[in-house]
Amino acid sequence: MTFQEIIKLHPKPISLDLDARLRCIEECLDCAASCTACADASLSESDLGELIGVIRVCLDCADVCEATARIATRQTRPDIRLVRATIEACAAACLACAEECDRHAAHHEHCRICADVCRRCKAACDEVLAF
Amino acid sequence: MTFQEIIKLHPKPISLDLDARLRCIEECLDCAASCTACADASLSESDLGELIGVIRVCLDCADVCEATARIATRQTRPDIRLVRATIEACAAACLACAEECDRHAAHHEHCRICADVCRRCKAACDEVLAF
Amino acid sequence: MTFQEIIKLHPKPISLDLDARLRCIEECLDCAASCTACADASLSESDLGELIGVIRVCLDCADVCEATARIATRQTRPDIRLVRATIEACAAACLACAEECDRHAAHHEHCRICADVCRRCKAACDEVLAF
Amino acid sequence: MTFQEIIKLHPKPISLDLDARLRCIEECLDCAASCTACADASLSESDLGELIGVIRVCLDCADVCEATARIATRQTRPDIRLVRATIEACAAACLACAEECDRHAAHHEHCRICADVCRRCKAACDEVLAF
Repeated sequence: MTFQEIIKLHPKPISLDLDARLRCIEECLDCAASCTACADASLSESDLGELIGVIRVCLDCADVCEATARIATRQTRPDIRLVRATIEACAAACLACAEECDRHAAHHEHCRICADVCRRCKAACDEVLAF
Repeated sequence: MTFQEIIKLHPKPISLDLDARLRCIEECLDCAASCTACADASLSESDLGELIGVIRVCLDCADVCEATARIATRQTRPDIRLVRATIEACAAACLACAEECDRHAAHHEHCRICADVCRRCKAACDEVLAF
Repeated sequence: MTFQEIIKLHPKPISLDLDARLRCIEECLDCAASCTACADASLSESDLGELIGVIRVCLDCADVCEATARIATRQTRPDIRLVRATIEACAAACLACAEECDRHAAHHEHCRICADVCRRCKAACDEVLAF
Repeated sequence: MTFQEIIKLHPKPISLDLDARLRCIEECLDCAASCTACADASLSESDLGELIGVIRVCLDCADVCEATARIATRQTRPDIRLVRATIEACAAACLACAEECDRHAAHHEHCRICADVCRRCKAACDEVLAF
């Protein structure tokens, strides 16, 4: 997406882990949108009563991923503790969401795909945290 | 991005304008991230004092685009007035942001690109509103 | 809340409608949190199947109210069209949410209270728009 | 604020630490709005160049506090790891923001008050984490 070009034009870039960060941001955006869509699809399923846990964790995961995408995007004067704690929370949210969606993957394709996106996002967070 | 697959798996889809909606959601996500990145790049520029208006309108535009992306993603029991008013606000935000970023496009490439993304997002919003 | 003191310390305040704006911001924050709580309470009710519309509109209303609270808080170089369109979307969201929650007010006290908060927030938005 | 009444009406409440949670949610909302207002006031100050770090950390802190307020509000089927990691990130964000705002407290009253709100929010997060 185009936002990555803008990030690369920052006058004082954080160069060390740029590729990992760009991947992390894109996965966070995709994961937030995927969780919003999975919660919404679940709300319209006939077995809605089985999907309460999915809806809850997808709402939470979307909230954390959006905040993380914003914070990981900013390169001006970062506070490392804040940035790391946020990405750690995002990894925890993605893991929780992947585990809950996995439990419904056999019955609901949207849960199966959402679990995959969450795992990709967790891996991208972990990669940034490894620096 | 993967979220579009999940949107297509909604058990009771809004089929009428699906392609336009998917484009609108993706543009909103890209525009929100682009505005966050442009505000952040502006905050580190040496002529920061000239870019106060850019920072303000980019922050606003990012906030509206994120809310719009979420609302346009949901297909369960939509309230049409709410959805339309939100997308109209998004189109207004993108127009305002494009105009302000345009004023700095000659000096800052991130403003030039951000203005383009805002215009694309406005066009995608207008397309959904045309249905 | 304390944020109102900070708003009053802005070096270039928007003085015209300050009281109306402060009320609007506080109502938006309360409405966003109330809608988040009402959607969540609804998700745990035994008649969850009846509350799908409540959950959907509460999620939307929370998203619009949060974006509106942020934008109405900022006083630096506002774009009036953007600000007005956002507050108009917020009023529309609050009206839609109040109407849907009203339909369940007799059975669920959280829906009755949420409808009240939404109406208060709509009135506060309308007051700002009247300037 | 009214949202607290709705939280108390949840059909399956998390009773253990309700008072601490309600305080944490209210502080998160106040802190998010205070940081948004402090970043905005800073953007209009004549010594803007000195306040770049304040603006950056206030934007981050507002994003984390809003996500935390939403997640702490929800009582349906929580994932404890996700909730704790988010509140930990919020405490880290509030600490970072308080420290940066403190550095400007002598010159800018909005920074002094914002630092206080951040410290109150951090304490409220820590209280929830102590359970």
